Amino acid sequence: MKYLFTTIIGVFVFDNQFNLVEHIKFNNIKDYEKKQKAEEKVRKKYKNIKPTPKEKIPLALEFLKKPEFMKQFYSQNLALTKKLVRSSINPDNLIIQTISNTDELDKTVNMLVKRLREWYSLSLPEAAHAITDNEAFVAVITTKTRKEILKELKLSETMGTELSKNDLNEINVLATEVNHLIQLRNKHTEYLKNVLKPHCPNLLELCGATIAAKLIELAGSLKRLALLPSSTIQLLGAEKALFRHLVKKTKPPKHGIIHEHPLIQKVKKTDKGKAARSLADKISFSARLDYFKGEFKAKQMKKELEEKFK
Amino acid sequence: MKYLFTTIIGVFVFDNQFNLVEHIKFNNIKDYEKKQKAEEKVRKKYKNIKPTPKEKIPLALEFLKKPEFMKQFYSQNLALTKKLVRSSINPDNLIIQTISNTDELDKTVNMLVKRLREWYSLSLPEAAHAITDNEAFVAVITTKTRKEILKELKLSETMGTELSKNDLNEINVLATEVNHLIQLRNKHTEYLKNVLKPHCPNLLELCGATIAAKLIELAGSLKRLALLPSSTIQLLGAEKALFRHLVKKTKPPKHGIIHEHPLIQKVKKTDKGKAARSLADKISFSARLDYFKGEFKAKQMKKELEEKFK
Repeated sequence: MKYLFTTIIGVFVFDNQFNLVEHIKFNNIKDYEKKQKAEEKVRKKYKNIKPTPKEKIPLALEFLKKPEFMKQFYSQNLALTKKLVRSSINPDNLIIQTISNTDELDKTVNMLVKRLREWYSLSLPEAAHAITDNEAFVAVITTKTRKEILKELKLSETMGTELSKNDLNEINVLATEVNHLIQLRNKHTEYLKNVLKPHCPNLLELCGATIAAKLIELAGSLKRLALLPSSTIQLLGAEKALFRHLVKKTKPPKHGIIHEHPLIQKVKKTDKGKAARSLADKISFSARLDYFKGEFKAKQMKKELEEKFK
Repeated sequence: MKYLFTTIIGVFVFDNQFNLVEHIKFNNIKDYEKKQKAEEKVRKKYKNIKPTPKEKIPLALEFLKKPEFMKQFYSQNLALTKKLVRSSINPDNLIIQTISNTDELDKTVNMLVKRLREWYSLSLPEAAHAITDNEAFVAVITTKTRKEILKELKLSETMGTELSKNDLNEINVLATEVNHLIQLRNKHTEYLKNVLKPHCPNLLELCGATIAAKLIELAGSLKRLALLPSSTIQLLGAEKALFRHLVKKTKPPKHGIIHEHPLIQKVKKTDKGKAARSLADKISFSARLDYFKGEFKAKQMKKELEEKFK
């Protein structure tokens, strides 16, 4: 009668007095991962071997406390933990970092363009007033001279001062930086598409990169998104309004982040709630298909939704 | 008996019935600026001419309502206003824009480095933990490979995952941008020195570029700073604490933005109030010297202060 006891540092065979009979050592995590082979070998050698029963495990563990085993037990366990931490990093993490940074870049660009408008207004206040789009404004002041802009705006004179080259340069360097930040933001969106494509093709097709990424960010991971009820998905990102509704009895929110979806944007105000519910249903289904590696059905779902709310 | 009436569109000579006798037209703002010449010419021609007395001005203005004058009156006034707006832009504006932007860049860099640390930690969490200085962290991850950093930190392995080239690239582009923003911030400080040097040499010498610029920003202009009592200068930037003191009877603040001055940083805690008062005195004097184009005395003042609080 022998007992088999497998740990991270090896397969142990004990007799019924719990003396060590044989020990197949695992030198690293890879050996441990192939533990079944070692166990089979031992089983073949000792016919009447049994796994250690629960009540005997403390005896086996007592044995492991010997210094020669303890040290290896500790270091191998640490290595295994590190390996598990490493493998816990998946596309979800990359997606969440990228979409969070996209939001931060948006905030930054808005703040810096506001400053740029005010600063450039010392030289040409009419430009900041006439060009309302932020990206267009940055593009104009980085590529055109003051004279060219005046001509384009059909103005003969300006309320601004002619700044020195040095002064203008300081504004221009800032504008160039802002331009880079805008480009980085757009690059992030392209990159998101590349990460989302193999990870959740259905969600990407149905919602587009930005909303798909935001949904994963709000849920925490694709897995959690897949397991959420569609009524929760419908309100992801509207938590404030939801709690306000629950506490102060205001109107309940109709939609969270999916509000930005083109489908919801297009429909009449009275249909928004209905459309949001249908879209959340399909999103939930897409997330499940993606998480459990199902078929690609998003194109068809999208068409159905579009026809329903035409 | 004739009346002389000078307006932006010309010098008018009226007889005592307020009929027009002569009119020297000003064709543009430059003519108006040389109005004294025209007035002298008229005074020589008509010996018994007097400026229009107050009670007669409405009669003269009535005359100007004629359409041929009105149109020119309007357009010339507009041109004059524009000119005044233009000339109201001075170094103060440039300084205030630059120092505000410096603050905004600081905020931005902090936010983005925080993101960068989190994002890069997917690949190498040990680096974000070991390198606490923001600029150093950005410099390291933009210039060194993962392997090189591991070696430098004397680590054989990491808890992070080996990210794909594409994934790492996205982080690297962000890091490069952050690096540019840090450089722009430093460039702003250099530029500030250049603008401050001729505008307020004493203030620059006494406080350094950043604090000098912040004082002008908080006061609104060098003129306003020069006219402020030194007790107000001492508390510029501590308005919140001051009002908290006045309303809630908390302790009064000892110093505002000048708290960042090396002199205040160096002295013992018990001397801080005294040092702040002395420094504010000298700042007030410097600002007055600079605004009224006085001598350069800041070097001596600085030495005095340093000796006093050694």
